[in-house]
Amino acid sequence: MAFVEPSPTARLLLSCPDQKGLVARVADFVWQLDCNIVHADQHTDAEAGVFFQRVEFSLGAMNDKRAELEDRFAALAQTCSMTWRLSFSDEVPKVAIFVSRYGHCLYDLLARWRAGQLACDVVAVVSNWPDHADTAGHFGVAYHEIPVTDGTRATQERTILKLLAEQQVDLVILARYMQVLGEDFVDTFRNRIINIHHSFLPAFKGGRPYARAHERGVKLIGATAHYATEDLDEGPIIEQGVTAVSHRDSVEDLVLKGRDLETAVLARAVRFHLAARVLVYGHKTVVFD
Amino acid sequence: MAFVEPSPTARLLLSCPDQKGLVARVADFVWQLDCNIVHADQHTDAEAGVFFQRVEFSLGAMNDKRAELEDRFAALAQTCSMTWRLSFSDEVPKVAIFVSRYGHCLYDLLARWRAGQLACDVVAVVSNWPDHADTAGHFGVAYHEIPVTDGTRATQERTILKLLAEQQVDLVILARYMQVLGEDFVDTFRNRIINIHHSFLPAFKGGRPYARAHERGVKLIGATAHYATEDLDEGPIIEQGVTAVSHRDSVEDLVLKGRDLETAVLARAVRFHLAARVLVYGHKTVVFD
Amino acid sequence: MAFVEPSPTARLLLSCPDQKGLVARVADFVWQLDCNIVHADQHTDAEAGVFFQRVEFSLGAMNDKRAELEDRFAALAQTCSMTWRLSFSDEVPKVAIFVSRYGHCLYDLLARWRAGQLACDVVAVVSNWPDHADTAGHFGVAYHEIPVTDGTRATQERTILKLLAEQQVDLVILARYMQVLGEDFVDTFRNRIINIHHSFLPAFKGGRPYARAHERGVKLIGATAHYATEDLDEGPIIEQGVTAVSHRDSVEDLVLKGRDLETAVLARAVRFHLAARVLVYGHKTVVFD
Amino acid sequence: MAFVEPSPTARLLLSCPDQKGLVARVADFVWQLDCNIVHADQHTDAEAGVFFQRVEFSLGAMNDKRAELEDRFAALAQTCSMTWRLSFSDEVPKVAIFVSRYGHCLYDLLARWRAGQLACDVVAVVSNWPDHADTAGHFGVAYHEIPVTDGTRATQERTILKLLAEQQVDLVILARYMQVLGEDFVDTFRNRIINIHHSFLPAFKGGRPYARAHERGVKLIGATAHYATEDLDEGPIIEQGVTAVSHRDSVEDLVLKGRDLETAVLARAVRFHLAARVLVYGHKTVVFD
Repeated sequence: MAFVEPSPTARLLLSCPDQKGLVARVADFVWQLDCNIVHADQHTDAEAGVFFQRVEFSLGAMNDKRAELEDRFAALAQTCSMTWRLSFSDEVPKVAIFVSRYGHCLYDLLARWRAGQLACDVVAVVSNWPDHADTAGHFGVAYHEIPVTDGTRATQERTILKLLAEQQVDLVILARYMQVLGEDFVDTFRNRIINIHHSFLPAFKGGRPYARAHERGVKLIGATAHYATEDLDEGPIIEQGVTAVSHRDSVEDLVLKGRDLETAVLARAVRFHLAARVLVYGHKTVVFD
Repeated sequence: MAFVEPSPTARLLLSCPDQKGLVARVADFVWQLDCNIVHADQHTDAEAGVFFQRVEFSLGAMNDKRAELEDRFAALAQTCSMTWRLSFSDEVPKVAIFVSRYGHCLYDLLARWRAGQLACDVVAVVSNWPDHADTAGHFGVAYHEIPVTDGTRATQERTILKLLAEQQVDLVILARYMQVLGEDFVDTFRNRIINIHHSFLPAFKGGRPYARAHERGVKLIGATAHYATEDLDEGPIIEQGVTAVSHRDSVEDLVLKGRDLETAVLARAVRFHLAARVLVYGHKTVVFD
Repeated sequence: MAFVEPSPTARLLLSCPDQKGLVARVADFVWQLDCNIVHADQHTDAEAGVFFQRVEFSLGAMNDKRAELEDRFAALAQTCSMTWRLSFSDEVPKVAIFVSRYGHCLYDLLARWRAGQLACDVVAVVSNWPDHADTAGHFGVAYHEIPVTDGTRATQERTILKLLAEQQVDLVILARYMQVLGEDFVDTFRNRIINIHHSFLPAFKGGRPYARAHERGVKLIGATAHYATEDLDEGPIIEQGVTAVSHRDSVEDLVLKGRDLETAVLARAVRFHLAARVLVYGHKTVVFD
Repeated sequence: MAFVEPSPTARLLLSCPDQKGLVARVADFVWQLDCNIVHADQHTDAEAGVFFQRVEFSLGAMNDKRAELEDRFAALAQTCSMTWRLSFSDEVPKVAIFVSRYGHCLYDLLARWRAGQLACDVVAVVSNWPDHADTAGHFGVAYHEIPVTDGTRATQERTILKLLAEQQVDLVILARYMQVLGEDFVDTFRNRIINIHHSFLPAFKGGRPYARAHERGVKLIGATAHYATEDLDEGPIIEQGVTAVSHRDSVEDLVLKGRDLETAVLARAVRFHLAARVLVYGHKTVVFD
């Protein structure tokens, strides 16, 4: 059920202090390898003096010399003080989806995955409830019910971390998982936990956003996909969306309309991440779309 | 330059405690007058037990008996404890537009007005700056430059209120007017002052919303048109809009993109108000669109 | 798995030659029954002189006298030459979903249905391919594989019609069903077959719309949900949506982006139909939303 | 009233047969000049085997050696069989706006221009009607009323071409100009005439698109900005937009809603063109946004 890419490409995500000739040096590096750039995008934050780039190139003969490729780039990176990450389109990341009671995002992700639209392997569904075992089973994914109470939080989190380590999970998706994650967890999966918040952040941070949006009488509701950090609802935003509402909509209607929004926004954010299109800097993201 | 409606209609906006037969009684009232309902829309807030309705009907022979019409409806309204407002499509409201330095909303409103798209008479442009006198002149509207300083605020506000009274102004539009209005002012024009806030409220309440949106790294920016109240940025929301932004956008880009949004959202809100489509209750609105 | 409405309401959809007092007469009819109107919406096509209305009212004591209710309204309807349809919110329509190879709309509809978002009973999935039997099984719906070839079309269509009759199907959803339906079929389910076309009709009528959109270099692609008629792609439009594309998108990318659009647009159209919000007249629709 | 860019940049738009090392060669060229790339974007049409690129770089010391810059790039371009265009951000293009009776797009463009949002000089308004002379005058732009009848078309077009040549016009904007342009005209301003069509092309090509959209009962209407070619409504599309409509909207309502759409879509297309972001190939565009 894994996603198959036509021919493998390398994706380079990098950032460094801005200086002249960066584009040329990276492009030249690729050319010297006799590889072909298929996409290149860059951005300079003039204020902060930081250069960001995403370069995707077909591997050609370097396909079998990935370690060498990595070593050679490391040398270049050092001379420019780059922070960088190299990934390959045929290395399929392993994903765990966390869910509580609302199953719409889980369902949507699994259906997209089965339809070949998500370039990953979903290896586990983790939940503090038993509700979605049947769904996970239908898609052939192992379901781990791990209930959490205030007293057991730390222990359970260690259990989950152990599970994720065993499964070599690369990315955690919080698909309406209603538990706060501890610092250890966030630290282990820094910039590798995508959460969907059911509001247009920073509006309605915290709990019950639909009820509060209804109370305020807004004419649009939103959803926000972001990397989870220690500060709840303050992580780097990857993607946002909104939809129109009116006085006719009850809180329940907002919840219903919000579901479609949450699934769409989360799926777009996950796709960006899996395609190695997201760079985090500070508490913001650069999304090369 | 006034807007001309094909044939006059009456617009009834009402709210009252919910009870059976309200639609029938109002419809029957119109029928007994031998008038014809051309639009009717209603809403019940089940939780609060409040009924809201907008009925628009062609006047026919009642065109010459508007006072009688009003008296007869007052009688019905009393039996149902209705709050209500009756207006006529050919009674063109008088409008004053307030502006500070940014002229885009002023320009847009005046251009729409000249193009016959706003059913009102713009009788005054009020500003604490001289910048837009030329523009007002081009559209044939009197320009009142009334500078405001901390010491002169109360006096100047009285000057403005006097001016608006003389001009019989029905609606005040704050088209990026960067001065806070006092309680007296707000009270005099309760639910008749439309402000455009350059953020997706309640996100980025207060000053410098674009700078703060940039700082937070949001992927959408918004604009909100609302009735001004004593609580800054807390008034009943009439209309909202958003537009996509990315890491490429500087604060200046957000300001530029925001301009188009602000003009569009404000113009929609003003049109709703002028067409008697907005009912305020509590700190929310019902917009019959 | 059926959808449960809090307390039953009647939904009246009607159209007739425009005349004074129609709103009053219908509202009075409801009042005389001691029922309470919870929603009422109307529209007059001034040019054609036709009046359209949707009235939803709580049944109260009339809940047990539905036949009487229907008879009494029939009498009123006759005096006004009304075309009308009465339905009840607790009468759950039976639905058959038709699908060929692309399963995304089928999946989405079944997931929404299971989540309680579609007020219907899905009683059959019909396909000319075996691909989605497993999915239907997961949701507990019978799967009918009925292959169609040019020579067998008429026979197979009769087989399907017989099946739908046995299952008492009220609504047929063509969820990317790539077979043309014959006149008999369309006639039997007049205004009860919803098709999703993968273009923004009337642009790119006919086959391969994404390839043709790519060829033309459009900057937006669309999807259209409409009632199926004898004239392919010419049926009354219920709902449309669009999404942005660019020169970067290959035909395959358009297909992928189009999927999300198709599922969203089809689901909205189906919800409008199930809530008795759609009136067809001529080759257009009135959607009371 | 001209637009002022902070510090001048060069913008290179190029296309050529795809081959390895193109990004490197162009980036290296810029580096050798001791210039700094501030934006670079590229696209490869894999099917057609064509490479497209937009590179923007700050000029630094090359600011005073633009001819040399151009010569040196010409040499590189020849070795790669490139089609290319070099422009500088401080070379303000001269623009003529053509208009017939509907003035909303003209108004919007002039207001944006005055607000410093359009990097051009508007040097002429051309019209076959006298209606907008006053508006042009308000913005200090010469107004040329040049009526066109079937018999005078060829002569008048020559008159206009002469005028544009005298004014050294770089770009013609057809802001709802309702006259067909001859082959000579189109040829002279190949890919330098931007037209706004009031439909979502290719739907409703030709005349009366709003009336036909109303007749068809669509739920969205659109607008399309494209380069004018000999084939009416078939030119390369630069930008498109849509807005929702319903059964409530008369043809007049569509026209009114369409105005906002037309102004917004046309303004975006003009901004893309002025920023040297649009490459035409075949009958399509690459828009580097």
